[in-house]
Amino acid sequence: MSGKLYGIGVGPGDPELLTLKAIKTLEKCDIIAVPKTSDADGEKTAFAIVKGYLEGKATVECLFSMERDEAKRKAMRLKVAEDICKLLDDGKNIGFITLGDPTIYSTYMYVHKIVAEKGYETEIIPGIPSFVAAAAALNISLCEGNETLHIIPASNGENVDKIRELKGNKVIMKSGKSMSEVLEILKKSVADVKIVARCTMTDEKIYNGIEEYERAQNPEYFSVIVAKEQ
Amino acid sequence: MSGKLYGIGVGPGDPELLTLKAIKTLEKCDIIAVPKTSDADGEKTAFAIVKGYLEGKATVECLFSMERDEAKRKAMRLKVAEDICKLLDDGKNIGFITLGDPTIYSTYMYVHKIVAEKGYETEIIPGIPSFVAAAAALNISLCEGNETLHIIPASNGENVDKIRELKGNKVIMKSGKSMSEVLEILKKSVADVKIVARCTMTDEKIYNGIEEYERAQNPEYFSVIVAKEQ
Repeated sequence: MSGKLYGIGVGPGDPELLTLKAIKTLEKCDIIAVPKTSDADGEKTAFAIVKGYLEGKATVECLFSMERDEAKRKAMRLKVAEDICKLLDDGKNIGFITLGDPTIYSTYMYVHKIVAEKGYETEIIPGIPSFVAAAAALNISLCEGNETLHIIPASNGENVDKIRELKGNKVIMKSGKSMSEVLEILKKSVADVKIVARCTMTDEKIYNGIEEYERAQNPEYFSVIVAKEQ
Repeated sequence: MSGKLYGIGVGPGDPELLTLKAIKTLEKCDIIAVPKTSDADGEKTAFAIVKGYLEGKATVECLFSMERDEAKRKAMRLKVAEDICKLLDDGKNIGFITLGDPTIYSTYMYVHKIVAEKGYETEIIPGIPSFVAAAAALNISLCEGNETLHIIPASNGENVDKIRELKGNKVIMKSGKSMSEVLEILKKSVADVKIVARCTMTDEKIYNGIEEYERAQNPEYFSVIVAKEQ
């Protein structure tokens, strides 16, 4: 009998934000799959969150490409999926850990889809998304009453324009290299902007406003921007 | 010394989706505050999720109004906040439970703001939002790569129009009485529409498409619609 693949959301960083279901699933899996990319920091975080529950359990590293070349990225995802299928064929239950929640911008889902389409049993275990933890850290709501909330990944130019155009509250993720462009747009808006870097991690930083962030001169991959209409 | 108010997200329904942090916070609070509205179902659910951790702990019911009269709603929130402040003055730590996550459309946040503005210590403990759990139940992602995700509460007409206008993936919440109008709009779109009712509860129902939902003739308050661009 084939094993089952679980995509396990481990939350944003604080191990206490693991759900009971995530812990139970980690414990019942035979092998823990750990994503490996050029973002060494991200991996270390995901692994650090769960390491208390692994007790010498086998782990496999799954290498993803973060290069711009889409063909290369696809090929590496396919390779990860194939490796996982081989383990599933051996009857192993696999827990693939992913930061935050698997259904929100996780590279894991590409693998999940390929494996599911091949007919293997798959299940997603939800995790606390980083933007939800960011709002908690800021001690504010993301949306109330009739307010809409837009989640915008700002990694390409097209989406940067959306920040200007969309009305409502916004969460801006993955700004990376677009960060300064994103902040320039937000400066011209009337939104109340707050930024959380390395949310719920021991070195979490909160910036109350763009000026405070820019003064710190410390743009980080894990930064989440919350821009609320006033 | 005054007590502290914790807004605790208890997740969408499955008690296993509680985080360790939520459980620890429940355990350290002196009093558990339980929201009470005309939506008796919602309360029962929030209470059912946490009841295993209360061990004869004191609970207080906090009565909210769901009426259209905004002044009445405000007055009742203010009353709840005042009652909570009295308990905080007595040095009690209070855990206010809320379904899903406190920062996403929770009535609790109105109380949280009032209490925080009065100078009391407050903290938000994040929970798994219902739409994240809905995507997991559907075994699909909410957003990948550069896709934007719009969270739209469809309880008023203005927002129903946004469903037509906004491009990207959408989560439509709180449709309630607008459900049939929302579904008519989605029928005319090219989106892949799926609906989850009573997500992660023992009687969860998944509808793969609008037709399947309409055939079931069973619109529910807890329904989450996920409409993905194709």
